[in-house]
Amino acid sequence: MVTVRDIQGGITTPAGFRASGVSAGIKASGAPDVTLIVPDPGATGAALFTTNQVQAAPVTLSRAHLKSSGGHVAAVLVNSGCANACTGAEGLKVARESAEVVADRVGCSPDQVLVASTGVIGVSLDRAKLLAGIDRAAEALSITGGADAARAIMTTDLGPKEHAVAVHTADGVFHVGGMAKGAGMIEPLLATMLAFLTTDARVDPAVLHEALTASADDTLNAITVDGECSTNDMLVALASGASGVAITRGSGLGALIAGMRAVCRSLALSIVRGGEGATKLVAIRVTGAHDVAAAKRAARTIANSPLVKTAIHGGDPNWGRLVAAAGRSGAPFELSRALVRIGPVVLFREGRPFDEAAPDAARVLQDHEIEIHVDVGMGGPCEATVWTCDLSAEYVRINGEYRT
Amino acid sequence: MVTVRDIQGGITTPAGFRASGVSAGIKASGAPDVTLIVPDPGATGAALFTTNQVQAAPVTLSRAHLKSSGGHVAAVLVNSGCANACTGAEGLKVARESAEVVADRVGCSPDQVLVASTGVIGVSLDRAKLLAGIDRAAEALSITGGADAARAIMTTDLGPKEHAVAVHTADGVFHVGGMAKGAGMIEPLLATMLAFLTTDARVDPAVLHEALTASADDTLNAITVDGECSTNDMLVALASGASGVAITRGSGLGALIAGMRAVCRSLALSIVRGGEGATKLVAIRVTGAHDVAAAKRAARTIANSPLVKTAIHGGDPNWGRLVAAAGRSGAPFELSRALVRIGPVVLFREGRPFDEAAPDAARVLQDHEIEIHVDVGMGGPCEATVWTCDLSAEYVRINGEYRT
Repeated sequence: MVTVRDIQGGITTPAGFRASGVSAGIKASGAPDVTLIVPDPGATGAALFTTNQVQAAPVTLSRAHLKSSGGHVAAVLVNSGCANACTGAEGLKVARESAEVVADRVGCSPDQVLVASTGVIGVSLDRAKLLAGIDRAAEALSITGGADAARAIMTTDLGPKEHAVAVHTADGVFHVGGMAKGAGMIEPLLATMLAFLTTDARVDPAVLHEALTASADDTLNAITVDGECSTNDMLVALASGASGVAITRGSGLGALIAGMRAVCRSLALSIVRGGEGATKLVAIRVTGAHDVAAAKRAARTIANSPLVKTAIHGGDPNWGRLVAAAGRSGAPFELSRALVRIGPVVLFREGRPFDEAAPDAARVLQDHEIEIHVDVGMGGPCEATVWTCDLSAEYVRINGEYRT
Repeated sequence: MVTVRDIQGGITTPAGFRASGVSAGIKASGAPDVTLIVPDPGATGAALFTTNQVQAAPVTLSRAHLKSSGGHVAAVLVNSGCANACTGAEGLKVARESAEVVADRVGCSPDQVLVASTGVIGVSLDRAKLLAGIDRAAEALSITGGADAARAIMTTDLGPKEHAVAVHTADGVFHVGGMAKGAGMIEPLLATMLAFLTTDARVDPAVLHEALTASADDTLNAITVDGECSTNDMLVALASGASGVAITRGSGLGALIAGMRAVCRSLALSIVRGGEGATKLVAIRVTGAHDVAAAKRAARTIANSPLVKTAIHGGDPNWGRLVAAAGRSGAPFELSRALVRIGPVVLFREGRPFDEAAPDAARVLQDHEIEIHVDVGMGGPCEATVWTCDLSAEYVRINGEYRT
């Protein structure tokens, strides 16, 4: 019997982790921009990386480090305010040097350090500021530093995104904590935005990777703000083992996935809720497909449709746009047996619109959390849910003015 | 030696066509909403239809009519203010009945009538208003009715979209005219939005179809406003033969394509220029690909990227977003040999950003017509251009309030 309980906290809630977030001046605003996460010696790590063909220097480096260290991670360095993407050989050099400095301060080999960056693409990362920031961040490391860390990875986020759970199993209790940054350029494709999970379970790297993939699939990999998959997406999990609860493929893996998925789901919904300009969290649930990939494809096309997202923003139950988006998604769709529901209100069923239900549906759209259900009418058993937000004039303002 | 000259006019510029546009009360505003196009007897027709799996009643009916008449078209009926899509058996019945009434007034068989609709999806088309409108439109038919027709097919368009050319060939002169409606739900996929072409060349249906496909491919099929492919897209070409110039596969096909492409291109750019909320026309040119499909895929992903479109709106030369969009498009991309140019200003070449060029690029973005060039760095000979517009707060306003 496994129970997963939400608790207040973040990445330093599980035992065996210290973290910090400090200001290094990379952001012109002076807001915190350098984060360190340091597990106790002997920790394991796993990561998923962006599927974008253009990968930032920290992605390239972290991927190589994880491979050469065999999944043994002694520190994670994150900077916000600069993505260090499309910065050529110079960018990779700065990333490598920063890992070396972290390794020196923490006392590990450089390939046990993962680095992540987020911010504007194509701008050089200020080497001197970053290295000075690492020194300050190393001094500030604390077992209660999770909240500072969550704040220092933010870009256009409205606030920090943290979550933690306690997982009760027959073998004992372990914890999973996490933090994420989101806001724009959000549509993970078998990868994800910047998010960091910690657990005090003891897990070998391969099993941790398996748990991470399973946990992200229908959570952090099932959200979209604007359909944009970034050059810097990275989801990292670290396991300290400090709880004494050992997870193997044969024992406890389900519990670990349950805990990690709960944290991933909470972070995922926080990212969408805090999407640039978003005022509403919308779950697009597609049913009736013959395979999950088709259901996902339809859900993702609806979730990224600017006409659907503006209609939701305006409170207009314009279900025709949902049907049109599903119809152009490429997923099999049979109009004469399809269904469209906004909240509990059916607007279209078996080829027939229910115009009289529009006022009720419009009232549902006034809520801040909305479920939209589209059955593709193929009579299949498969479904998928993608979370999205509305598209507002504020999104246009934020992204038209980002650098100016 | 073939020359194509722009002339003032639209669908009634070629000889052998009458047209009209009248108000039937389908639009609540009282603006014109019913259009008839009637060629002289013996005209041929060809059409391309939406690739959306959800197809409106007029699409289903026109496809069937074109097939059963063997490409002989005696009239085209268009209504705006209601898409007659997702309206079930009743919607198909109204479409069929409207074709019968047109056939009666014009003196042809019903399957020689094509029908097209545009407006809100899922609302029933008012049968009585439409049939009364047909009567008025039949009475108003005129050889100078092209401008009225172009006005009556509008929805959220800012103004009518017309173009005409004279094609001078060794065999004589013929004309091509056209009109289109656009604004929102614009991203044709091997089909197009509502657009109607006329020519006074004499062309058999199969050759006309071939010319239409060739003309649309890099014009009306290479534009996007919001990445949305509608349920009602239709591109129709009619040939009256009144000029006496006969086109066959062996003679004059190139001239016909040159004329039709010129009209399609003008209409396509008008649609993007008049895109909902658009303030800028942007050509996204992708080069260096090994096949045209890859170049198109990269161009289309960039052209539909909300982060690219908002940056252009805000005048921010944020080339990193162009690279990120190309990188996630799925088209092969090699960053170390890629190039990004905004107008004449190179911002990124062979892995190196030119930060100092940003102010010059920002000045280019103040223009209303902008070319953005991305070379994908694969060293291939293929390229593609997709036209798009910027994404503004006005787009959000229009589409949040469309029905309210």
